[in-house]
Amino acid sequence: MHFRKMINVMLLVWVSFTSTTQAQEHPNLIMTQAGVEKMRNSLGKVPLFDASVQRVKQQVDAEIALGIDTPIPKDFSGGYTHQRHKQNFIIAQQAGALYQILQDNKYATYIRDMLFQYEAMYQSLPVHPQERSYARGKLFWQCLNDSNWLVYMSQAYDAIYDTLSIKERERLENNLFRPFADYISIENPQFYNRIHNHSTWGNAAVGMIALVMNDEALLQRALYGIEDDGLEVGARDNDGGFIKVEGQKAGFLANLEDPFSPDGYYTEGPYYQRYAMYPFLIFALAMHNVKPEMKVFEHKDNVLLKGVDALLNLTDAAGNFFPLNDGQKGMSYFTPALVSAVDIAFHYGTQNPQLLSIAEKQNEVLLDESGLSVALGIRDGKSQPFTKQSINLTDGQDGQQGGVGILRYGDEDLTLVFKYAAQGLSHGHYDKLSFSLYNKGNEVLQDYGLTRFVNIGQKGGGNYLKENKTWAKQTIAHNTLTVNETSHFNGDYEIGSQHHSQLYFFDSTNENLQVVSAKESNAYPGTEMHRTMAMIKLTEFEKPFLLDIMKVDSKSQNQYDLPFYFMGQVISTNFDYDSPLSLSPLGRDNGYQHLYLEGKGKPAVASTQFSWLGDGTFYTLTASTNVSDELLFTRLGANDPDFNLRRDAAFMLRRKATANTVFASVVEAHGSYNPVSELSVNSYSSIAELKVILDDKNYTAVLIKGVNRQTKTFIMANQDASSSTKHQVTIEGKSYKWKGAYQLF
Amino acid sequence: MHFRKMINVMLLVWVSFTSTTQAQEHPNLIMTQAGVEKMRNSLGKVPLFDASVQRVKQQVDAEIALGIDTPIPKDFSGGYTHQRHKQNFIIAQQAGALYQILQDNKYATYIRDMLFQYEAMYQSLPVHPQERSYARGKLFWQCLNDSNWLVYMSQAYDAIYDTLSIKERERLENNLFRPFADYISIENPQFYNRIHNHSTWGNAAVGMIALVMNDEALLQRALYGIEDDGLEVGARDNDGGFIKVEGQKAGFLANLEDPFSPDGYYTEGPYYQRYAMYPFLIFALAMHNVKPEMKVFEHKDNVLLKGVDALLNLTDAAGNFFPLNDGQKGMSYFTPALVSAVDIAFHYGTQNPQLLSIAEKQNEVLLDESGLSVALGIRDGKSQPFTKQSINLTDGQDGQQGGVGILRYGDEDLTLVFKYAAQGLSHGHYDKLSFSLYNKGNEVLQDYGLTRFVNIGQKGGGNYLKENKTWAKQTIAHNTLTVNETSHFNGDYEIGSQHHSQLYFFDSTNENLQVVSAKESNAYPGTEMHRTMAMIKLTEFEKPFLLDIMKVDSKSQNQYDLPFYFMGQVISTNFDYDSPLSLSPLGRDNGYQHLYLEGKGKPAVASTQFSWLGDGTFYTLTASTNVSDELLFTRLGANDPDFNLRRDAAFMLRRKATANTVFASVVEAHGSYNPVSELSVNSYSSIAELKVILDDKNYTAVLIKGVNRQTKTFIMANQDASSSTKHQVTIEGKSYKWKGAYQLF
Repeated sequence: MHFRKMINVMLLVWVSFTSTTQAQEHPNLIMTQAGVEKMRNSLGKVPLFDASVQRVKQQVDAEIALGIDTPIPKDFSGGYTHQRHKQNFIIAQQAGALYQILQDNKYATYIRDMLFQYEAMYQSLPVHPQERSYARGKLFWQCLNDSNWLVYMSQAYDAIYDTLSIKERERLENNLFRPFADYISIENPQFYNRIHNHSTWGNAAVGMIALVMNDEALLQRALYGIEDDGLEVGARDNDGGFIKVEGQKAGFLANLEDPFSPDGYYTEGPYYQRYAMYPFLIFALAMHNVKPEMKVFEHKDNVLLKGVDALLNLTDAAGNFFPLNDGQKGMSYFTPALVSAVDIAFHYGTQNPQLLSIAEKQNEVLLDESGLSVALGIRDGKSQPFTKQSINLTDGQDGQQGGVGILRYGDEDLTLVFKYAAQGLSHGHYDKLSFSLYNKGNEVLQDYGLTRFVNIGQKGGGNYLKENKTWAKQTIAHNTLTVNETSHFNGDYEIGSQHHSQLYFFDSTNENLQVVSAKESNAYPGTEMHRTMAMIKLTEFEKPFLLDIMKVDSKSQNQYDLPFYFMGQVISTNFDYDSPLSLSPLGRDNGYQHLYLEGKGKPAVASTQFSWLGDGTFYTLTASTNVSDELLFTRLGANDPDFNLRRDAAFMLRRKATANTVFASVVEAHGSYNPVSELSVNSYSSIAELKVILDDKNYTAVLIKGVNRQTKTFIMANQDASSSTKHQVTIEGKSYKWKGAYQLF
Repeated sequence: MHFRKMINVMLLVWVSFTSTTQAQEHPNLIMTQAGVEKMRNSLGKVPLFDASVQRVKQQVDAEIALGIDTPIPKDFSGGYTHQRHKQNFIIAQQAGALYQILQDNKYATYIRDMLFQYEAMYQSLPVHPQERSYARGKLFWQCLNDSNWLVYMSQAYDAIYDTLSIKERERLENNLFRPFADYISIENPQFYNRIHNHSTWGNAAVGMIALVMNDEALLQRALYGIEDDGLEVGARDNDGGFIKVEGQKAGFLANLEDPFSPDGYYTEGPYYQRYAMYPFLIFALAMHNVKPEMKVFEHKDNVLLKGVDALLNLTDAAGNFFPLNDGQKGMSYFTPALVSAVDIAFHYGTQNPQLLSIAEKQNEVLLDESGLSVALGIRDGKSQPFTKQSINLTDGQDGQQGGVGILRYGDEDLTLVFKYAAQGLSHGHYDKLSFSLYNKGNEVLQDYGLTRFVNIGQKGGGNYLKENKTWAKQTIAHNTLTVNETSHFNGDYEIGSQHHSQLYFFDSTNENLQVVSAKESNAYPGTEMHRTMAMIKLTEFEKPFLLDIMKVDSKSQNQYDLPFYFMGQVISTNFDYDSPLSLSPLGRDNGYQHLYLEGKGKPAVASTQFSWLGDGTFYTLTASTNVSDELLFTRLGANDPDFNLRRDAAFMLRRKATANTVFASVVEAHGSYNPVSELSVNSYSSIAELKVILDDKNYTAVLIKGVNRQTKTFIMANQDASSSTKHQVTIEGKSYKWKGAYQLF
């Protein structure tokens, strides 16, 4: 054993010996004596709480009837042993809550028996046989899942603590919990001592069991990490993420400090934020109950509770998280982690009545004081609609590393998600200044998300598939500019991690003209991209449209590819294109090897138009194009022998041998089609022409001419984002004067 | 003018002169004096009726506010003039109902003004400028839509008849209605005098206006057609359908006689049955009101009311019609035609309380006596769930031309649609013994449907696209056997129309073992196909599975292709396959030119398995294969320059140089995946092996071995479908005895 580890272990043994001699009442972790009293007294009086108790009771009773199984670990996440151990800790945690609420001993007995089965097997348990992880667990293939187990089992143990004899506790603590906590921490510092969602789970797991056992040394390890972990700077995990960076702190508080921006945005993106929120919140709540003086909820200006709000704002109208970076589509605020998040944020936050409407949709509450509090609020009619609005979420510990801008019109009729963030750690994509567009809960222009079938064993063990790197992370997989068929930062994680885009401005004060604008100058050295996206509602248009201005300045001549991953069926184009008889890959590398070319054309007129139909709505892209531009239709699926990729389509603008240029386009939602009425309504674009009428270092102006011949001109100041600077330009003999970074004339 | 036509017109003038001298009370067509009284007295007392009145009132009031527009016709179905004239007749019919119910003169004035605008324009109106139809209309591009107009406008006219002076009526009748009726009938006998849904609309239109005008000669023309139409036998319409067949009758009653089977199945399929039901039922209802002695509802043993029941049984769990033959997906029993059908079938049929539950889902009733009756039934709590069960619907006038067998398990948990019908007139597909499979409202193995974007002008004027012939109608587009890469009947409509498949037997008495079996011996001369499909639920399986036995006997060596158009994403295979770097069309013709080959392999073991995930359920196909079989993955989309086809996938079994053979396979639904819980449950097949253990002229036996090693043997008698014959065979030394056409041991 490494000398430093030995010291740690010795210290631990000593501290725990001393601390366990102090008396503590249980439960005190998530449930408290007072909270339990309230819940018992409320039974039968609070509909949603009662329903949640009944639902959980049914699940737990069914599992109790099945009997306890703690199989010898062998499978990846799709397999039986993985699912069984996962189910065990979920059910044990629930059984603990039921024991406290319903005071039925069978739940305590079930947990005790299960814990002793684990106690009996753990001491001789080798490292998990699956070798893929950089930090293999014992019950599961990675320490991450072992940590999940301990976070939940700590709660189960706390719930039945008082039912166990001192001897029983000693057996469990000495043979199971302490070795378990040590294994995921001091024996796996490469897992435990990082700034990463993995470590957050590890820290919370160690911290939770420390609080139950009243073990101060273990708690210190949870809060501040392992002081001297022996890790080398620059090491990587199996996802390619850094394990240790120079000068990096560790432990729960550091993890709370670093990945959250002051706005509560989590740098890995909402899919991982959803996953990370649970250990953050549940351990914060445990600290609130046991060590209120530490004020963990209030840490960094209430960043945890802000994070819940940020997360809810990172969903579409159906509650699905935007799949920024590695995100599996379909994950939504209906996940149990968000039930926890909403309940805790409501009860321990400002009792925001809008959170109650989310809880109503979730139709489920936690079996603790916060869940009761939410159910009471709903019962008493306090619920108000959660209104998502346009919001700018900064990224980075200090909010200075770019961000994500979300523009919404109406009741989520149209939602733009514009990403100008930092790399997002190992789950980040090379997608600077990318965007996705939603119409209510439907994707209009998609972000592909990840390439993984989470927990489906047949698909690479349920883990990330190689196409996640070769396709999903690549720039060409996103609605942003790819230069010379290479990804941003050349697809190099180390370089990407050093940079972030810069917000130019965000202005959503006028719902009918909302603008977000950002610059990126590091993705392609020598080439600067400046993208401005405006959501504009004009009275003569049925719905708002999105104006997209991508200004590129480069020291060299390049090929620019700007794809639009439209969802739906091609309806019409105003240009001709050739359709190859056989489909070949568009390129060799950087994601291009996965795209087939389905069509290739040239602009017929200066304003190229392409319409499609998706989910019953017509959409038209109108782009200002040059005669030498190429217009490509691509289809995903090349070099995909295992059918890991969806066969999704894109329309792509390609401009060759160009240095400075502007891509200006409008995406318009219009009309509808209904297969029952078979009525096709307003299926044509309202735009006749889109033209860049000025583009120089200081100003860019785009003219939009409607089919009714009315025109609008959008002018940007490219070098001064101040809202107070006065500008004046003359375009085609006409003078324009305005104040601020942009104006619509 | 043709001499016969002249005689007709003269006769008409004389008859109408005499008949209009008789007095009649109005309304008497769809609404009656007594019915109107009831509706007026019920206002405010019957929630669904009141809501329907309010909804219609809102629509009509909005249109009245817009003002009347009767533009000069110029557009195809996607365009403005088409939509406007269509909207006009819909709104006019509704305004008529509102006038009678609410007694507000503004509705009568609106209709009168609109009718006189039409009267003013109709006399000098030329034939519609779009030349595509074999029977061009005047207001619309085809007489069909003109007939729609007259069916609805007759109702509007009837509703305000009493508000008009005799002079006004004469103007409308002489300048608009009679010439209109003549145009779509005697001036277009190729449209009017067929056995076809087009003619049904024409007949109903002429009959409806005849009843309002009390014109007996016109009514005779509606009921019995034009006696001497001058049409040549063998002529075709622009869909390729026959216009006149030797010895064919015409008129409404002949159309009622011919395309409906005694079970109420309409030979063109449910999509067109839904369209045809409205004129059938609305004119039958008008006849019921004005000429009850004709007993049109009771015609052919109540076939019209049976047709409503058949149609409701031809839907999936979400109410969508199975897209047999030319059918646009998404059309459902929520269409207004089915609101009419359900209300009329309830009120004038046996007051089946199950129909009320469909009406509740539709959440809308007709503004007439039948709608009131339905709304009353719902108000009074009489509604019962509409339970769809397994059903065999015969095809053909006498029920002797094959049919469609539907097997359902549970509450539509699994639904098989097996088609062994006649050609289905000009909208038929070459898909003998094809099937589709549904899991609740989700397609598991799809029927492609049609290739048309109904009413979307940009897509070929909203009409049938050429890919409907080159792809959608072809055999390879369906889940059935294609021999030597040619379609059934060589894709020849004339030959196909002479034949139909033969039911072997249908048995759904035991829910856990339901079987349908049919033979086809004309699709490929010299080759007989015998397909048997069994829906089997075994206790050791989570869900029922589908056993599919396609037995082929041929005088020659052939290539057999049996595709499965699975919906979802490939999860796993138990065989290796090559994935081409470039995609090329699978063939040159008969639909093959539209398929790309995405993968090609050979069986690794005798039981080939392929699993996919669709709509949150896992599915596995297990097929008994030969070592020389080819296993193909295909993708639709080749030779589709306008992106008219969806990029759907198939898994295809190919067996070359074979005469007699059996394709035996099992399609299994199992487990689930949920992107919120990320739980993958029961994702593996429960079948270890599938083996044809006997196949000769008389018997075919298939052995199914479960992963638990338990085996089941399904034995078929191939030559005797009797349920009383006793059979005995010995297979691999074991003797099997049973009674009837099949047995599961």
